[in-house]
Amino acid sequence: MKNRIEIIGVEHIPDISEGVELGEVIVDSLRKMGFELRDGDIIVISHIIVSKAEGRTVDLSSIKPSEFALKIAKESSKDPRYVELVLRESKRIVRMRRGLIISETVGGLVCANAGVDLSNAGIGRAALLPIDPDYSARKIREKIKKLIGVDVAVIISDTHGRPLRSGAVNIAIGCSGIEPLFDRRGEKDLYGRELTSKIICIADELASAAELVIGQADEGVPVAIIRGYRYQSSETPATVIPRREEDDLFL
Amino acid sequence: MKNRIEIIGVEHIPDISEGVELGEVIVDSLRKMGFELRDGDIIVISHIIVSKAEGRTVDLSSIKPSEFALKIAKESSKDPRYVELVLRESKRIVRMRRGLIISETVGGLVCANAGVDLSNAGIGRAALLPIDPDYSARKIREKIKKLIGVDVAVIISDTHGRPLRSGAVNIAIGCSGIEPLFDRRGEKDLYGRELTSKIICIADELASAAELVIGQADEGVPVAIIRGYRYQSSETPATVIPRREEDDLFL
Repeated sequence: MKNRIEIIGVEHIPDISEGVELGEVIVDSLRKMGFELRDGDIIVISHIIVSKAEGRTVDLSSIKPSEFALKIAKESSKDPRYVELVLRESKRIVRMRRGLIISETVGGLVCANAGVDLSNAGIGRAALLPIDPDYSARKIREKIKKLIGVDVAVIISDTHGRPLRSGAVNIAIGCSGIEPLFDRRGEKDLYGRELTSKIICIADELASAAELVIGQADEGVPVAIIRGYRYQSSETPATVIPRREEDDLFL
Repeated sequence: MKNRIEIIGVEHIPDISEGVELGEVIVDSLRKMGFELRDGDIIVISHIIVSKAEGRTVDLSSIKPSEFALKIAKESSKDPRYVELVLRESKRIVRMRRGLIISETVGGLVCANAGVDLSNAGIGRAALLPIDPDYSARKIREKIKKLIGVDVAVIISDTHGRPLRSGAVNIAIGCSGIEPLFDRRGEKDLYGRELTSKIICIADELASAAELVIGQADEGVPVAIIRGYRYQSSETPATVIPRREEDDLFL
């Protein structure tokens, strides 16, 4: 079958502590699985382990909430120290209702709670998004290349809610080695008609696909390999994906 | 490897004409491929062939644009007959700028151009969304069960742009046999902490995953099989996914 993709959950990933090289961890874990990476494989990594490796988790007891954070927390029965972190990670509040904060993060993502995560962050801790997920992805890609000589693409993912539709989906917040937006304009349809407005966010689709195995991340599968998808190599960062305010009809 | 998903593009799907039973077409095509469906497989079908099978394509030359359609078309250099169809398929305009129409369809989806598609619709024709994609999915699922006795889930997909992020992604507009929203609240994280707000739109993630092979739809691969993902059986329709206006911070 020529048109076949595999998605494999990477087993044996240990609990990640600060300073760990994720490229090494992934290579080790795959070795234990007896799985050999190939050129062209795509590695999707749940951001939580990137945040941990990069020391982007915070002990909530060290956070002193501001007056504003205390007020918001009270309305929403959230931990005021968590709200404080959300505000600190935000550069602009986009929407706010009943304690739900949709903001633009310092990194330029519009998402709920500035991506600050209490799940899997460690007891009494919160995980912030990696400072530069594209850089994180590149570092991991280069480490893997150095260790085993294989050219892969790396996507750092996070699960985000979205406007219009219920339920969160996994999206790409960082990438390296893959063009995140796949531009099919100019291609022809079945009847020879040129496709219109066919820019596909393949990085997000790959992140969503990976979640079919990463969905178990909370039981320790924070990394997936996608094999068989032919992508365009590139160093375009995932920061091209968030739309600018002036280009978005909903912002 | 216990945590492994396969996505297979279904070959040999012929050009679909009105009245064709898609369940039969899929079973035939899989037989030609030598591929045997199993209980638990998920079939993702690009809506375009559902629209065609259900006679939901329109000869543009039969459409007389209204004054309003002519005005919008002029601003955006679109075909006024196409704009007319978009308006007819809409029950509410949500956003409109430079000829881009985001509307709520008669079926309750908020999307660009009411889902009316000129690609792959046939020369001089436009494809409308299926009237009830959940019903379409159920019919196909039941036909497959009747023909070969296998219990599958069926998702009807379409590629939609979205707020906040560039690039379209494939989403689920109809489903049968699978719970579209996967509710993980109550599950525990690595450290025993209860997950918060973890409702995943697995139907959309499966649709996005399928596009890794359906992405070639325009060369005739409008159907994908996803194997290895354990889902919850259900007859919940995909109409639970679009958020109600009062629950959406962006509507």
